[in-house]
Formats: sequence, C-alpha cells, structure tokens
Amino acid sequence: MKIGVDVMGGDYAPDVVIEGAVDSLQHLVARDEIFLIGDANLIHNMLTGLNIPDGRFTIVPTTQVISMGDVPAKAFAQKPDSSIAVGYRMLKEKEIDGFCSAGNTGAMLVGVSYTVNVIPGVLRPALATIVPALDNHNSVILDVGLNPECKPDVLMQYGILGSIFARYILEAENPTVKLLNIGEEASKGTATVKAAYELMNNHPAINFIGNIEGNGLFMNNMPDVIVCDGFVGNVILKQTEAFYHIIKARNLKDPFFDNLDFEGIGGTPVIGINANVVIGHGVSKRKAIMNMILQTWAVVHANLAQKIKEAI
Amino acid sequence: MKIGVDVMGGDYAPDVVIEGAVDSLQHLVARDEIFLIGDANLIHNMLTGLNIPDGRFTIVPTTQVISMGDVPAKAFAQKPDSSIAVGYRMLKEKEIDGFCSAGNTGAMLVGVSYTVNVIPGVLRPALATIVPALDNHNSVILDVGLNPECKPDVLMQYGILGSIFARYILEAENPTVKLLNIGEEASKGTATVKAAYELMNNHPAINFIGNIEGNGLFMNNMPDVIVCDGFVGNVILKQTEAFYHIIKARNLKDPFFDNLDFEGIGGTPVIGINANVVIGHGVSKRKAIMNMILQTWAVVHANLAQKIKEAI
Repeated sequence: MKIGVDVMGGDYAPDVVIEGAVDSLQHLVARDEIFLIGDANLIHNMLTGLNIPDGRFTIVPTTQVISMGDVPAKAFAQKPDSSIAVGYRMLKEKEIDGFCSAGNTGAMLVGVSYTVNVIPGVLRPALATIVPALDNHNSVILDVGLNPECKPDVLMQYGILGSIFARYILEAENPTVKLLNIGEEASKGTATVKAAYELMNNHPAINFIGNIEGNGLFMNNMPDVIVCDGFVGNVILKQTEAFYHIIKARNLKDPFFDNLDFEGIGGTPVIGINANVVIGHGVSKRKAIMNMILQTWAVVHANLAQKIKEAI
Repeated sequence: MKIGVDVMGGDYAPDVVIEGAVDSLQHLVARDEIFLIGDANLIHNMLTGLNIPDGRFTIVPTTQVISMGDVPAKAFAQKPDSSIAVGYRMLKEKEIDGFCSAGNTGAMLVGVSYTVNVIPGVLRPALATIVPALDNHNSVILDVGLNPECKPDVLMQYGILGSIFARYILEAENPTVKLLNIGEEASKGTATVKAAYELMNNHPAINFIGNIEGNGLFMNNMPDVIVCDGFVGNVILKQTEAFYHIIKARNLKDPFFDNLDFEGIGGTPVIGINANVVIGHGVSKRKAIMNMILQTWAVVHANLAQKIKEAI
C-alpha cells in the first residue's frame, strides 16, 4: 500500500511530520510504502539525524510550500510543485493509494476539484469523524466542517455516505443512522432537518432510526451514523476538544477521555471523492501525524472511495 | 418578592416540585412569597406530609393540567384553569413578579404571546443559559433552543440582549460579545453568521470582539456573551449534559464539572419578554426545582425584563 504524506503541512512541519512518519513504520508491514513529499534536503537531513536509512521511505522532492495562511485556490494554482499539489498529482496518476496532510485544509479541498474530483452523483463531499461512546461503540459523524450549510438532500446523502463508512471502516453490519436535532420528534428543528428527516425515513438504503439530541452523544446506544451539517458538526467536534483539554487541565485521568484525544485519531477522511484523502489537524504533533498516516492506511485498506463509488 | 411556581409541570410533578419549593425557602427571606399553583388538595396533603405549615406558601388552586404531550397552543387555549395559564394570568395582573415551570416548554412559550407579550422592538425572545469556565468566569450563551433558525439581525440583537443579561445578572461591566462560528476569521461560516458578524462588529451597543469556536467554550478567557442560533446552542447545552453524565458514569470527581450540572442551575430565563419567566428542564428533580425557583428570584431581583425594555 502506498501512502503519500505532505511533509510540509502543519504548524510543526516538517520535523514532527517526519518523526510521525518514522513512528508509523512500526505499525505497518514491509510492503506498505510511505512517500514523504517535500523538501528533499530537509527530509534527508532529518532522517539522518534520526538514524533512519532513507530506504525506509520514498522521498518525493518538491520545491514549493503552501503555507497555512495562503489563499487556497490561488496557492494551489500558483504552486504546482508544492507538496499538496504534487500529492494530488500522484493520487490522480495512481502512484499512491492515499494522501494525507495536516496543512492548509482549504488547499487540500481545492486539490480535489483540480485533480481527483468528486464522485459523480455525490452532491457534496464531507469530513467524517469517529465518535467513541461510553459502551465502547464507535460511531461516525458527518459533516464536521466541509459544508456549514446543507440542504435536505445533502443531509440525506450523508446518511448513505456515513452508512458506507460505518460498514467498511467501523464494520457495522446494517448501520443505524440518526439525524442530529434539538428534539426526538420528527416535528422538531429547522425546516431543513424536518425535510431531511422525511427523506431519510423513506430511503431504502438508509437504516434510519430517528433523531439524536446533543445529550445522546458519547452515551450508550449510539447509532452507527450521526448526520448533521458542517457547522454544528464542527462545533460538536471542537467542544469535545474543549472537554478533553479541561480533563487534562483538571488533571483527571480516565481511559474514556483518552479516546477523545484527536492526536489518537489523527485525521479526518474526506469522503465522497475519487481518492482516499485524510486531513489532519493543523496543530498535529508527532503522535497525531503517526495516527493520521495510519488512518489513511485504514481508509485505503477499506477501499472507501471505491466502495462509495459503487454505492452511489 | 412574589414567585409563582407551576406545581403540575415536569416529569416528576407535583411531588418533587413541592419538595424543591420547600427547599428553596431556606435560601429566601420572609418577605419572599412563593405561590404554589396547582391542585390544592395535592399540595395541602404533600405539605402536611412534609410537616410544613400551609402558611409558608400561598396556594393557588387550579383544576386543569397541561401535560408534556399536549399540543402547546391548543392546550393553553383550552385549559384556562391550568397551572401554566393561571401563572401567566397572575404575571400579567402583576400578582406575581416572576413565574417558573418545568412543564410543557411549548405551552410556556405560547403563554407569552397570550398574556405578557414580547417587548416591543425585540425581534425574537431567547433562552439564555450561563456557561462556567475553567478560570471561574461565567458567560451567558443565547439562544439555546427557542429559535433554531435565526436571521442576522436576530443574532445581532441577541448580542444586545445577552449584554444586558451579562451586565445585570453576571455583573460584567462592559460585557464582551463573541459570535459562535467554525473559524476565527470574519470570512468563516454560513452567510447568516458572516452577516451577523458585520452587524455586531459595527453596532455601538455591542462590545464585539470576534468569533469563538467550539474549542473555546468552557476554557479560559471566555467572552461575557456568546451568541448563536437556537439549534447549535441547544446542541452545545445538551452535549455539555452528556459530558456531565460521562463524568458521573466514570466516577470522576471534580468541582468544575459540578458546575455543569443543570440541577445546580435549575432553569433558563426567557429573555426579551414583558415579564420574568424561567423554564426548567422536564427531568428536574428536587434540587433542580429549588434552583429553578432561586434562578427566578435572581431574574426578578435584577429586574431583567424591565432593564431590557429600557434598553431596546
């Protein structure tokens, strides 16, 4: 399996990206190949410093960098030899099976439309994140930030995309789907979620079991898939991050809360596109980068993009 | 001060409501008068059982009950002798200074338009809740469920209503206001929040200091006021409830999390109306009811409705 890693992306790049990639090797087998895409000299020196023979990685030299502050579309177009642009080109040419970056999220998304494209029939791609629960069940929630405004048909289709994710990544057999809302009844919420409720409730490919409220998140008996727009999904994700920080600040120790550490999850797959792409948190450090790479491996292993293409 | 309490409202009414009212007496002075509105026989028997002389309360007998499942507008119109309808009538006639209920929220809101009305100039009333932070600062967040869809001018006005709440309830001198969003930059989020950002940023009565993301909630350096629509506000509130339950389920003990217990807060004031009304959680037990009554006392004490009327 061939995984491309954007060495230049993230607040602590390139050093921690290379360190994270080195750590990921322990969890991968020999036929898994990591492509480090970035400044070749930097990478070489760093690997030498870490006593890692270059041969453990394939270095893909690039000369440009898209920084966190760059305007995404402009940067992607004007920096064809940036690590993000080269990664997408390699994805498109099938030189790699998956690509991940903790860099400029906007540029990562622009890259999709410039190269691998959205899967025909997919209304809007989404970012999907795994949510752990008290009873150790894992759910997937989408969208968590790509589309802050979603029409009912987009939410409905997230039910389908999420079900595929749950089936192949979470190994749920007949994934249950709930719609995030402010009440359990079908009549609750905005006009948009009410319409989405109707669409999902009547869709043969969605095992829809009703609404979930905020106080059902992380609790027992979660559905396999939680559907929401990217605004509220993003707030949920970040509020969880706040609670994780509070637990640490208060010096409380509990394994459940360790599951909420984004560094342990590493990255968020972009689903609904013709390639396996994972986006990491800008503030990713060594552990988060390692897990972003392993998450990319899991998405490639499940062949998620292909599974969605077949289902849509 | 005269506080009306809906004895028949809530999942555990009337018993826990009466018990909570009894507990509240310990925190009130002799000139504070509690009106128990509901089935007079039930109330009398319960007080006798608790060895409380009837004289500690004023019992307002009613013969009808609006249940949790009743359709709000219909129930309010068809049950004029229900505890909710009588409470609002007493509010309107100024026989009480404040009214609280853990009963049918919809009927409590319908009651506003049938009796005390929205303050002229207020676009939409809101539910406002206090959010504690790691550094012990208290903020107010609104709306948390009344208006799932808010236009930019409504969000902007929540900035004003929230500032008045922060000034008179939280005693913040020049309350800072932030807009909940999915990024810090003015260009982030939906068309609605972008427009609200512009309106708040240019409003002389709002000390607007930018966007807050979900990971800023509960952390140090919170603004005094957080503005959001009722959909995302409700999800935030309920996700907080979920975390509180997890902390309890995992048997973690920490005073910060005790602050997140809704039972300790008790109720949520409806702001922007011509009266002081507090709505409690349907699942309120004894402690929550007591705090709902004390919260009503605080809102009456601050004369919040009048302060908003003067400011709008």
